[in-house]
Amino acid sequence: MGLTFDDLPLRPELRGEEPYGAPQLDVPVLLNVNENPYPPSERIVADIASAVAEAARSLNRYPDREAWALRQDLAAYLGHDLTAAQVWAANGSNEVMLHLLLAFGGPSRVALSFAPTYSMYPEYARDTLTTWITGRRADDFTIDVEHAVAQIKQHAPSVVLLASPNNPTGTALPLSLVEAVCDVAPGVVVVDEAYGEFRRDGTPSALSLLPRFPKLAVSRTMSKAFAFAGGRLGYLAADSVVVDALRIVRLPYHLSAVTQAVARAALRNADELLARVAELRVRRDETVLWLRSLGLVAADSDANFVLFGTFPDRHAVWQGLLDRGVLIRETGPDGWLRVSIGTADEMAAFRAALQEVLGS
Amino acid sequence: MGLTFDDLPLRPELRGEEPYGAPQLDVPVLLNVNENPYPPSERIVADIASAVAEAARSLNRYPDREAWALRQDLAAYLGHDLTAAQVWAANGSNEVMLHLLLAFGGPSRVALSFAPTYSMYPEYARDTLTTWITGRRADDFTIDVEHAVAQIKQHAPSVVLLASPNNPTGTALPLSLVEAVCDVAPGVVVVDEAYGEFRRDGTPSALSLLPRFPKLAVSRTMSKAFAFAGGRLGYLAADSVVVDALRIVRLPYHLSAVTQAVARAALRNADELLARVAELRVRRDETVLWLRSLGLVAADSDANFVLFGTFPDRHAVWQGLLDRGVLIRETGPDGWLRVSIGTADEMAAFRAALQEVLGS
Repeated sequence: MGLTFDDLPLRPELRGEEPYGAPQLDVPVLLNVNENPYPPSERIVADIASAVAEAARSLNRYPDREAWALRQDLAAYLGHDLTAAQVWAANGSNEVMLHLLLAFGGPSRVALSFAPTYSMYPEYARDTLTTWITGRRADDFTIDVEHAVAQIKQHAPSVVLLASPNNPTGTALPLSLVEAVCDVAPGVVVVDEAYGEFRRDGTPSALSLLPRFPKLAVSRTMSKAFAFAGGRLGYLAADSVVVDALRIVRLPYHLSAVTQAVARAALRNADELLARVAELRVRRDETVLWLRSLGLVAADSDANFVLFGTFPDRHAVWQGLLDRGVLIRETGPDGWLRVSIGTADEMAAFRAALQEVLGS
Repeated sequence: MGLTFDDLPLRPELRGEEPYGAPQLDVPVLLNVNENPYPPSERIVADIASAVAEAARSLNRYPDREAWALRQDLAAYLGHDLTAAQVWAANGSNEVMLHLLLAFGGPSRVALSFAPTYSMYPEYARDTLTTWITGRRADDFTIDVEHAVAQIKQHAPSVVLLASPNNPTGTALPLSLVEAVCDVAPGVVVVDEAYGEFRRDGTPSALSLLPRFPKLAVSRTMSKAFAFAGGRLGYLAADSVVVDALRIVRLPYHLSAVTQAVARAALRNADELLARVAELRVRRDETVLWLRSLGLVAADSDANFVLFGTFPDRHAVWQGLLDRGVLIRETGPDGWLRVSIGTADEMAAFRAALQEVLGS
């Protein structure tokens, strides 16, 4: 008989757990993990390859442990007078969040968020032995200020995690809510703006609040707007002292010389890469309206996906779409499904498939 | 007044801690962090750039979460009939070790090693809230079997970490010691072979023990022998059930598409990259003999560095070398210094500088 988990000193919280992640299936239309459907142009591919060749010539050496040049570029991209010392970067915003909870979470500490929200958050908490507590979002997925303040006062979280726009609902938070949370939070408040570039006109970023709230941190990722999911680069803007705390718990040389070079190449090409964001936002708004025209409920979205429903048997709808070559995500509250915004052709395929599934 | 750590909910174990890492100084001769002194050839640089261009064409998509092709290549490189399911990979062996302690460490668990050893180990333990206990190495930096067995029986560690060749001493462990440890260890035994390719002839790898001990894991890195420190790729061979446990605690998509592509390109060029290892081993042995010819003590080394001494004021010797443009590492037990093996010219500069410093 082979080895089993019972033979190993696996931490008790991990027993019965599965590795996180959506199914990676080979399907024609992939609208399941909020990827940007547009690959980089051949010009950008050549620019990336050239940057990597340059980095490869000293690949025998460890990379800059501080990733200083990359952090300068990220600060310049974010604006708001931020400097490199106020920016942190890691292998995906996953790792940024892990650093936050390694530094500020831990046993007898609470991380608080408001459900439904990003399903990885409780895993970061689990891995850092932080107590995970969720308040609730309203039926329209907004957060009630009085409820949020009451939750913070009750649980005194060392970290509050506010996704805005929220995954999987697409909901952006008004700055007044973030301000109210920062006013009462005893610890660090993280606004996760992974989908920030997809906000609708007039929806503000929490970056503008950083000067007023030194314990506020705003995280971003290059995965979505920069079409850089394969490159794995998440980052965060905060007071430089918050960044210094994250530097204590990062693994040394956590960002490879290649990752740094490729991310900088993508940032140099921000104009071209971000040009597609406007197009995706328009298509997102059209998708919301189209779903509503079918009599479905579609949540307002400031992200590159739409949560819609509700279905008595959402799995059957998901499976029906998959049978027609369209993979979306079975996530969010019971009865809801999430579709990422793809190309015009991909969305046409989604619409055709959904009409077939609902008509049958 | 600005924000200070006192204003933040920094975990108590982190107060007063500094980010880990040797000084990154701009010095002509860098012999401080055990890098391979040989950059890749222009042919390999072009091969890497080409592999990255190919990966960049779908950089908008998330990478293969399982890094399956890379793990197949690593298994083929290791030999010993290993398969991809028995190999794990992460951003540096740092992250491999973090995964091991996230899975098998934690509160009320003990990680045991034998000092002096790699100075990052206690940081992995700290970050995962694992109790860190060290037995001792003998004066010649070997580990006494009876002492090792007694330590394991006393502390019942869920993880034993055995660096072989050990950093910073260069000491490889006989398989009889690893076998004795595996015979009594109640949990996982990790043999860290980061410097494995630099072993002297006749020094065995623990890979051959894997079939007999299912809770044994052998970690490696591409940083040293593959001259790939900037690429950040560590890996581990173990029973597939051990690997499955690590998959639970890895962050999803932890290895970028670019990292996977670059590492695979380096593995395709293993013959050329590893050709330099033989040269470095010869120079390492020459360095040991030369240091001893000065009347110094130099530890036997199976790695690409040599620990030597002893000096009443090692800092003065380190500083004297630095003043002459040679950066080595002030590490190991009191009175010892560690020098990495560089090119012939770099070692000549080291020898000239050391003679000046000792003669002055």
